[in-house]
Amino acid sequence: MKTASKPASRKSATAHFPKIGQIAYEGPATKNPLAFRHYNPDEVFDGKPLSEHLRFSVAYWHSFRGTGADPFGSGTITRKWEQGKDEISVAKKRMDAAFEFFQKLQSPFWAFHDRDIAPEGRTLAQSNKNLDKLVAHAKALQKATGVKLLWGTACLFTNPRYMAGAATNPDAHVFAYAAAQVKKAIEVTQELGGENYVFWGGREGYDTLLNTDLKREQEHLARFMHMAVDHAKAIGFKGQFLIEPKPKEPTKHQYDFDVASGIAFLRTFGLEKHFKFNIETNHATLAGHTFSHEIEVAASQGLLGSIDANAGDVLLGWDTDQFNTDVRELTLAMVSILRAGGLGSGGLNFDAKLRRQSIDLDDLFHAHIGGMDSYALAFKIARQILADGQLDAFVAERYSSYDGGYGAEIESGKATFKSLEKLVLGKLGEPKLRSGKQELLENLISSYLHG
Amino acid sequence: MKTASKPASRKSATAHFPKIGQIAYEGPATKNPLAFRHYNPDEVFDGKPLSEHLRFSVAYWHSFRGTGADPFGSGTITRKWEQGKDEISVAKKRMDAAFEFFQKLQSPFWAFHDRDIAPEGRTLAQSNKNLDKLVAHAKALQKATGVKLLWGTACLFTNPRYMAGAATNPDAHVFAYAAAQVKKAIEVTQELGGENYVFWGGREGYDTLLNTDLKREQEHLARFMHMAVDHAKAIGFKGQFLIEPKPKEPTKHQYDFDVASGIAFLRTFGLEKHFKFNIETNHATLAGHTFSHEIEVAASQGLLGSIDANAGDVLLGWDTDQFNTDVRELTLAMVSILRAGGLGSGGLNFDAKLRRQSIDLDDLFHAHIGGMDSYALAFKIARQILADGQLDAFVAERYSSYDGGYGAEIESGKATFKSLEKLVLGKLGEPKLRSGKQELLENLISSYLHG
Amino acid sequence: MKTASKPASRKSATAHFPKIGQIAYEGPATKNPLAFRHYNPDEVFDGKPLSEHLRFSVAYWHSFRGTGADPFGSGTITRKWEQGKDEISVAKKRMDAAFEFFQKLQSPFWAFHDRDIAPEGRTLAQSNKNLDKLVAHAKALQKATGVKLLWGTACLFTNPRYMAGAATNPDAHVFAYAAAQVKKAIEVTQELGGENYVFWGGREGYDTLLNTDLKREQEHLARFMHMAVDHAKAIGFKGQFLIEPKPKEPTKHQYDFDVASGIAFLRTFGLEKHFKFNIETNHATLAGHTFSHEIEVAASQGLLGSIDANAGDVLLGWDTDQFNTDVRELTLAMVSILRAGGLGSGGLNFDAKLRRQSIDLDDLFHAHIGGMDSYALAFKIARQILADGQLDAFVAERYSSYDGGYGAEIESGKATFKSLEKLVLGKLGEPKLRSGKQELLENLISSYLHG
Amino acid sequence: MKTASKPASRKSATAHFPKIGQIAYEGPATKNPLAFRHYNPDEVFDGKPLSEHLRFSVAYWHSFRGTGADPFGSGTITRKWEQGKDEISVAKKRMDAAFEFFQKLQSPFWAFHDRDIAPEGRTLAQSNKNLDKLVAHAKALQKATGVKLLWGTACLFTNPRYMAGAATNPDAHVFAYAAAQVKKAIEVTQELGGENYVFWGGREGYDTLLNTDLKREQEHLARFMHMAVDHAKAIGFKGQFLIEPKPKEPTKHQYDFDVASGIAFLRTFGLEKHFKFNIETNHATLAGHTFSHEIEVAASQGLLGSIDANAGDVLLGWDTDQFNTDVRELTLAMVSILRAGGLGSGGLNFDAKLRRQSIDLDDLFHAHIGGMDSYALAFKIARQILADGQLDAFVAERYSSYDGGYGAEIESGKATFKSLEKLVLGKLGEPKLRSGKQELLENLISSYLHG
Repeated sequence: MKTASKPASRKSATAHFPKIGQIAYEGPATKNPLAFRHYNPDEVFDGKPLSEHLRFSVAYWHSFRGTGADPFGSGTITRKWEQGKDEISVAKKRMDAAFEFFQKLQSPFWAFHDRDIAPEGRTLAQSNKNLDKLVAHAKALQKATGVKLLWGTACLFTNPRYMAGAATNPDAHVFAYAAAQVKKAIEVTQELGGENYVFWGGREGYDTLLNTDLKREQEHLARFMHMAVDHAKAIGFKGQFLIEPKPKEPTKHQYDFDVASGIAFLRTFGLEKHFKFNIETNHATLAGHTFSHEIEVAASQGLLGSIDANAGDVLLGWDTDQFNTDVRELTLAMVSILRAGGLGSGGLNFDAKLRRQSIDLDDLFHAHIGGMDSYALAFKIARQILADGQLDAFVAERYSSYDGGYGAEIESGKATFKSLEKLVLGKLGEPKLRSGKQELLENLISSYLHG
Repeated sequence: MKTASKPASRKSATAHFPKIGQIAYEGPATKNPLAFRHYNPDEVFDGKPLSEHLRFSVAYWHSFRGTGADPFGSGTITRKWEQGKDEISVAKKRMDAAFEFFQKLQSPFWAFHDRDIAPEGRTLAQSNKNLDKLVAHAKALQKATGVKLLWGTACLFTNPRYMAGAATNPDAHVFAYAAAQVKKAIEVTQELGGENYVFWGGREGYDTLLNTDLKREQEHLARFMHMAVDHAKAIGFKGQFLIEPKPKEPTKHQYDFDVASGIAFLRTFGLEKHFKFNIETNHATLAGHTFSHEIEVAASQGLLGSIDANAGDVLLGWDTDQFNTDVRELTLAMVSILRAGGLGSGGLNFDAKLRRQSIDLDDLFHAHIGGMDSYALAFKIARQILADGQLDAFVAERYSSYDGGYGAEIESGKATFKSLEKLVLGKLGEPKLRSGKQELLENLISSYLHG
Repeated sequence: MKTASKPASRKSATAHFPKIGQIAYEGPATKNPLAFRHYNPDEVFDGKPLSEHLRFSVAYWHSFRGTGADPFGSGTITRKWEQGKDEISVAKKRMDAAFEFFQKLQSPFWAFHDRDIAPEGRTLAQSNKNLDKLVAHAKALQKATGVKLLWGTACLFTNPRYMAGAATNPDAHVFAYAAAQVKKAIEVTQELGGENYVFWGGREGYDTLLNTDLKREQEHLARFMHMAVDHAKAIGFKGQFLIEPKPKEPTKHQYDFDVASGIAFLRTFGLEKHFKFNIETNHATLAGHTFSHEIEVAASQGLLGSIDANAGDVLLGWDTDQFNTDVRELTLAMVSILRAGGLGSGGLNFDAKLRRQSIDLDDLFHAHIGGMDSYALAFKIARQILADGQLDAFVAERYSSYDGGYGAEIESGKATFKSLEKLVLGKLGEPKLRSGKQELLENLISSYLHG
Repeated sequence: MKTASKPASRKSATAHFPKIGQIAYEGPATKNPLAFRHYNPDEVFDGKPLSEHLRFSVAYWHSFRGTGADPFGSGTITRKWEQGKDEISVAKKRMDAAFEFFQKLQSPFWAFHDRDIAPEGRTLAQSNKNLDKLVAHAKALQKATGVKLLWGTACLFTNPRYMAGAATNPDAHVFAYAAAQVKKAIEVTQELGGENYVFWGGREGYDTLLNTDLKREQEHLARFMHMAVDHAKAIGFKGQFLIEPKPKEPTKHQYDFDVASGIAFLRTFGLEKHFKFNIETNHATLAGHTFSHEIEVAASQGLLGSIDANAGDVLLGWDTDQFNTDVRELTLAMVSILRAGGLGSGGLNFDAKLRRQSIDLDDLFHAHIGGMDSYALAFKIARQILADGQLDAFVAERYSSYDGGYGAEIESGKATFKSLEKLVLGKLGEPKLRSGKQELLENLISSYLHG
């Protein structure tokens, strides 16, 4: 497989970011803020260029629909391309700008919600028509640039009709509407060669239990997912379905609270064969988990699908969706991802937004460059950690008592309470305490990070 | 069935709480702080006395082993019965005091960990011997007083040997030890007629992922649970197995984080037929959930088992285990419990402790009286809410579009994305927004609480 | 003093809420959701009608500018009065609706930001002109209805110019702009007879310390406050200046984090004579404090000014601004407020918003009725608690050792380490532990709440 | 000034840590986990060895009194030196071990609570006698090794007598007892040449407002502090008094919640000349602040005193007191510390404890080595950041509009609302938005961290 980003990236247009050329790898010593210090897309690891290991993706919604608005203030970010004679032509110009950006950034992938790329019409039919126009435009741009679609999805949370949920809406009419919208979104994702399709249930939860039938809502959600699986089969869509957990916000409680609750849902309703997880850093921390934890939980069941790469502010209680430059956190995440065999058809999608005050065009580059460099560096350090093997050897040794003897019998299911009691009352006696060596291991990680 | 607490409660001894007689129901107007204002154990609802609906239980560990110590200070609570010639005789005297307390409080149940009631010996054999002595003592006291055992459990978290977990310990030796200890704990629970057996995995998690094989640990935990199921079957123990979720503390991350993660675990490892959940209020809030939420999630899958009745301080980040006098919170919880058909073989166990400064003997009574009165009042208000039917009618109506037509086809699995799209593009069109009426419903609840 | 709300409330117009008449007090037993169950504005306590004790106020921004929008969705609430030929006439119609609402609700007060009531123009001069028009309209409506202005303020957070703060903006130009805006806002507050003027520094903080000179920003803020004090003096504005603390959101860190940090600021910069605090329930909990705590801290220094009455969801990390129906929490707050001598020129301003799904006109009434009833009930219970005196007597007794002897010498400053050491090494010896009786006191509070 | 640690460190005893020699600087490439990779105590910066810049200190309580116990488990850490014929001789042996550790670690300072080093007696007189013995022992060890005392303090939180506070205890008897204890603690700190004396009011707060007179308690605390100031003057103690803020735990609410509330307290009671702050990383995050924030707030008023160097787990709600290896966080803190002119008489005291599972002797070394290396590296990177000047230049430029013209008039107090309004309505008009460049600055920091 060849990296898509390469050929296109050499001849990018300059209409919308006229002062910024292609971002190039210049190495750690560069002082150029518009260059990569760690991300060299062409550097080969295990026979694959770095771009194919990391599979970066730009999130259309934040980077091309974000305005810097927050609950207490209106938008601060204005872009020249947001003006034009009608909604559709503006949407196309915006998409042109986006693909220029993808190329200059050397991002091999992008991701979108249906309503990000095309304006919603007065009717679903009109919305679909608008969507078709922009999908055609995107297809052409993809072809021209080599940038590919990591995943598509449907926006089931912005429009007021979804205020009480989409698949979990108490009104079957809204369920039906959401079904029709997702049907179309899967189809356009297929049309654009999307490698995954994501379900983020932003409103699939409740604001108050007082007016909620939690059981019935979860059953409806399961029905919806089964219909999606059936439709994908019907149309031959081969992309991976991904559930993106988030504990809360905008709802008080979202049903896909975290990976574990997602597993509970999938297994309860017989869906575990058809879905993997799209794990977002900030959603993990909002749920009270580390990013690594969520990756490990998904990976432990073979359900690690993709990453929404960002960072939250752990001292703030909402989804801040920042670009992540915490190489330590990313290195630990990368260790878990690499141990799990990498991201497969998934990628590292920058579900991150510029700060409200970061209003310049170049800020969009700085933000992504920082994210890409940090992940690239984390990838290299994680590989080194795994290659050296000290960490894994420590862990393996720590559990080695299960590799033979009665430990192996425990794992195989041969041992019983009775057989084990006999051992303990007999020769085994009291176990010996062994240090967990946490500080030593933390120092070890530090030595890789600051070697 | 007759309430166990009745006959015994009339002739309680007075050795350990000499100044306090039996706590009697005196009604809401009483000024006597050592009387019940709302809990009348003999008042009959639906043909059953209130005591059998609420099934209160006193937690031995907090109320008879708690000292008021905290991470920054040594114990403040001293009891006269804690002195004696040897550990066993003190343990018996302590248990006498406890049963005197249960009776005076009219608590029909109690609950314990193995190491609460009997001192740990130098070997497991010695520990078991000690335990047998105290179990015999407890059996006699149960018989004499009519107080019954709600549940037993094993303490797998205090002893240093469990510092890295019990069933999830990296050392198979510790797993074996825990197996032997739980085997015995189930047996003594059976001996004492315990109606349930609880698994709280206080150390079943990790302090750092750096030294942890999360997948292997969860598999070991599952093996342990299967062994427990098999052993119960082998010895004919009919009590209900209960998992008690808690997200963290003492570990950084406990595998049974919340009910949903518990369901994921049970279903992943084929254990869902053998376990229900023991839901603790403070554990729910530490996991970022309301008490009601956890009850609803468990009840939605028929897995509501029992309640560890307490309260956390939501502005504090640790398990404060306070007695709960928030009647509003308890009423909402009781609505969910009653809708689920009540607690079955479970009960309301006061897993709550006196504040460090509450060092008087009567504080133990005040604390429990407050908890019992609050739950009793909540039970009555919840019944009234359900009897009036306004709340349930509102909810039923809100989802009524699924009761027929295409809504029913969605629920039955007949509808498809395609059939629903056709409807939406056809006659259905845009859904109409309907108010969720949250404030109206909150006022409705208030009207029951402050009628 | 006569309650303003009375005469006007009898002859309210019906243009904008045609189906809803005046909300009347019907007593606790009423089933009418559009009646007061506990708030009887005319009931006299200590020679003053309840309306003058509680001094309720409606927040213009939430109730008449709120749309139900959130960070993930556009507005859900549409009002008929939001249509018209131009911005000014819509603003007037909206204000007519608001005053109709104030009257029907029997709210004696209202509160606003400058930009809530009048549209911002292209220049400050134009904005001021718009504001003057609406202020004239408001003045007429106030006169016609008897509804009074609790406080005015300036919106220094919505417009992008304030994205990096107003008085703490790194650009002196923005400081100057904010100064001009606040000057005008104080003047129109004076014009409308506003009894207070509020400073909420929504953007007066930082997003990242990396680009921030914290010291200089705080000094600028102090300069701004001094200018405000000077200007008030210059124009003869007699209203109370109020600082409204909030820890964060929209900023990462707001300088007026809580009451204590506000006191630090005021005292550091010699401003403590000129300001009191406007305490918001939800801001208190976001800062990690209870509502009562913030009231007590302000009251302990004579700085309790007014209340922004709402509730947060303590399991969510952002400002949910809900209507508060938690009578227990409000009773404890009311005990503190009444002990402090009441609210003076302050009031209970409903800085609370309808839930996104609460889109009906009557929801606006339900929400406020619930809030008013809950506060009215809390007021009555708090009075009863204070009248009974048990709680206060307990506390007084607890500290009584400071009322005489060496305790009094400690308070008076006579005692020294040396004199106290002598006592302890001499006759005093080891102190005796006394129970804090927390559970007893919690039960006592419950007995008032559920008597 | 000469580094104290030098001469002694060459000839350390080997009685208690026989397998571990002195920890030496071996540079970043070393694979030796018992060597420094970044901390070279003798490396000179600005004419001062690194040891004098960083002034590391070992906390006696955690490292020599900690047992690994937590609220759910008994101690896991056993040390050979904890056995002996009587309490005093064990206390001496323990102190010998501690000084051996200080030397081998090359820590120039240590810190203690009175009750850490000497057992509490049955009476205060006895406690003082015990303390005197160990102080004499410490004095000899200090002399022999060159290790110095960074600060002393009194333990006013462990003994049950302080369960309701020390200086804020409702019982004047306890206040007097605390006064006597602190008097002695200051005196022994003076005796040992302690450079600071710390006040951490672990119980100076409340568990419930129901039984608390918050105003009176704060006044008592202020009286206590004034007595301490007077006593220091009386005995000629020249050390710096330090207040250590912590928001909560063990109390529900501690009066010294954070630096800002500490400033409010000091200024309210006229104490600001006599105290600075001892800032703890984990206490900062528990209060909802970053470590850097607390440093900046203190530094902005010239009140930065010392650092309790540790780390919290921001996903856990209690004081985890971990060793900090997050070089990014420490670098940002160091930038603030260096900008403030360094720590003066303060230091970096490792108020951090081994994890419960870290039971080996060498874990104590790993933990401290990790902390020292991380701080040393952070120091070097912070110096580089400040030397390069890019960051500071950016910030200075951002506020440059206040350096002249009307900006300077704002700062000097010349400008008024009226004069500024005139400017804005006149020539100034609407401000121009400028990007805050957060992502660019984050990348800049990354480039220093991973250069």
